[in-house]
Amino acid sequence: MTRRRRETILSHGPSDRAGRISPFIVMEVMEAAAARAATGAAVYHLEVGEPGGGAPSAARAAAARALEGSPLGYTLPLGLPELRRAVSGLYRRWHGLDVPAERIAVTAGASGAFILAFLAAFDAGDRVALAEPGYPAYRNILEALDVEVVGLPTGIAEGFQPTPDLLAAVPDLDGLVVAGPANPTGSIIGEGPMRNLVGHARARGVRLVSDEIYHGLVFEGAASSALAFDDQTLVVNSFSKFFGMTGWRIGWLVMPDDLAPAIGRLAQNLFISPPAIAQHAALGALGAEDELRRRLPPLRRNRDRLLRALERGGVGRTAPAEGAFYLYADLGDLTDDSPAFCKHLLAETGIAITPGTDFDRKRGHRFARLSYAGPEDEVAAAAGLLEPWLKAQGRR
Amino acid sequence: MTRRRRETILSHGPSDRAGRISPFIVMEVMEAAAARAATGAAVYHLEVGEPGGGAPSAARAAAARALEGSPLGYTLPLGLPELRRAVSGLYRRWHGLDVPAERIAVTAGASGAFILAFLAAFDAGDRVALAEPGYPAYRNILEALDVEVVGLPTGIAEGFQPTPDLLAAVPDLDGLVVAGPANPTGSIIGEGPMRNLVGHARARGVRLVSDEIYHGLVFEGAASSALAFDDQTLVVNSFSKFFGMTGWRIGWLVMPDDLAPAIGRLAQNLFISPPAIAQHAALGALGAEDELRRRLPPLRRNRDRLLRALERGGVGRTAPAEGAFYLYADLGDLTDDSPAFCKHLLAETGIAITPGTDFDRKRGHRFARLSYAGPEDEVAAAAGLLEPWLKAQGRR
Repeated sequence: MTRRRRETILSHGPSDRAGRISPFIVMEVMEAAAARAATGAAVYHLEVGEPGGGAPSAARAAAARALEGSPLGYTLPLGLPELRRAVSGLYRRWHGLDVPAERIAVTAGASGAFILAFLAAFDAGDRVALAEPGYPAYRNILEALDVEVVGLPTGIAEGFQPTPDLLAAVPDLDGLVVAGPANPTGSIIGEGPMRNLVGHARARGVRLVSDEIYHGLVFEGAASSALAFDDQTLVVNSFSKFFGMTGWRIGWLVMPDDLAPAIGRLAQNLFISPPAIAQHAALGALGAEDELRRRLPPLRRNRDRLLRALERGGVGRTAPAEGAFYLYADLGDLTDDSPAFCKHLLAETGIAITPGTDFDRKRGHRFARLSYAGPEDEVAAAAGLLEPWLKAQGRR
Repeated sequence: MTRRRRETILSHGPSDRAGRISPFIVMEVMEAAAARAATGAAVYHLEVGEPGGGAPSAARAAAARALEGSPLGYTLPLGLPELRRAVSGLYRRWHGLDVPAERIAVTAGASGAFILAFLAAFDAGDRVALAEPGYPAYRNILEALDVEVVGLPTGIAEGFQPTPDLLAAVPDLDGLVVAGPANPTGSIIGEGPMRNLVGHARARGVRLVSDEIYHGLVFEGAASSALAFDDQTLVVNSFSKFFGMTGWRIGWLVMPDDLAPAIGRLAQNLFISPPAIAQHAALGALGAEDELRRRLPPLRRNRDRLLRALERGGVGRTAPAEGAFYLYADLGDLTDDSPAFCKHLLAETGIAITPGTDFDRKRGHRFARLSYAGPEDEVAAAAGLLEPWLKAQGRR
């Protein structure tokens, strides 16, 4: 409650900072899709941000062993030492980088990593920039922590990523959040652009937070880790996407040396420890890369089918679909009210997609996000229905 | 980083709010105890806040079934509907209260519940009171969220709990955090005192947050739930203590109606969902009360043995040891430097206890916390060593 409201004696309602957070429109889409499914009608789930397949079998086996043999009590606040070492090994394997285990904090999902990173790096009133469109939780967590968010409008010209030019126009920055592959656009940050962003941030004394949660899910080019260029960067990652472990709530944060003690104290107080059984499962998952890589070709076929359906349907402008499992489509030729458009699409075809307004308050009304994380037959069926429906819209 | 530091261009180091958090001294005790154990010397772990026994067998069985049969993806942000209903049933069973399932938010441990409760109820600059001594994470989380903490000095006279008299002396309050049974004192809040605290808070428009995480672990009197008196209260609880599920990171928050929508949006953005497998395990644990109650008599015997050893050793003043699994002992006759005293005790006897300075910055230097959560033989052996050692201290 605020000082103002307290003075009314019987104060009610949420804090101002909680009041700033808007609900996700995707939740309404999911509810409408569930209501349709309850009637027995077909629903094609292109609204979800969750990979199929779940945890790899080695992760489940490791969890089953822990369930039998471990007390599953609190672990150390920054996670099991063997898991921190194993994540350190991943950087050597994936990026040829030497990131000491002491700089890895195991967290309650990428969510826990963001809370720790933002609290450790930013004070109330600090200004942090991020690309629009973007994952709405960045803005919402930052605003709940009283950090001022500066949206950088990005479009197809910038590959939907921040650039030093866009940043140069913003005064008084304390931080920058980048993501590649990004949600909702799927666009990656390659080596050159990452070097430039890191260099710009370093020169200005701006703390960079790089969300690399979709690393491993890349279909064009190569996604770069900010750690290749600056060890002052905070890097967020998770076992939810490539490793398929969404509901386990297990991720990690790569900490710069100067923030590691503060992050340790924050983790101890805010989380006590990450979930124990999920840490054992994650250790199993790190040994299952072969199984996980076999999930990539169907995802790529899903992507190609949907891209083709969009293009043939007259929606040719999409963000670079380089990674993650999202297509972000410019529907500007068909609508300037994407929430209504998405409702209409669901009602007439059963295809559930997410209006862009969740990701970009200003220009999202002409965009929508399509997820291709689902099973191949479901996405193929959706693509088959989408193309003629879009064509019919264009003719209206 | 702060505006001030940003102006130095190449700013480094943590945010001011992260810098405010002090490390737990108990971690140093645990390290010293581990170092001693590594030499092969005996260590009696009276420093830990973790119950023995782990999850009940029905919880492990439910987790094993979920591991086989569930995709373990994201759940709804406030948890599985059947778990919310089951927790609602617990209030009927334990307290005769009707708390609708819609008001139960399943969270990532009590830790997640505190983050949600504090963000939903309090803005930066708000003032929140809490008893000293108290669980240090209350203060540390609140201060990380820029809430001003007002410590209420409590002692044996107040049963180490806040009272309306203590509160009346504090102007401009927005919130009050209470806990019963409390950490580190073990003191409960009975029906009369809880009614008075709730009434005082309501009359002043102060939001009450009641930490009821040690409910179910009560050895004298009866701990009252704040929900019995006011549905504007936020109540935090967890499966970690009575249910023995520390490392699973699963708890809950009872939400007042006026904060429920804001807490739902915060949970969606800050946590996405609580851990799925832990929710299945918690459903199992809720059916295992008989197994869990069989763990209480050994705890009570531990408590009585240690109380006797303290008293015979000349430490007669302790907080009311009514619940949880802690004794908070006034060592004022023996020391005014409890950290040194505890080091000394560990070095000479192998008994690890926690200096009071973790719980009370001002007066903790003459107190220490002893946990009786451990196995009966270990606590009995520690009690046997403690009594003569304390007597010897008194003679020095």
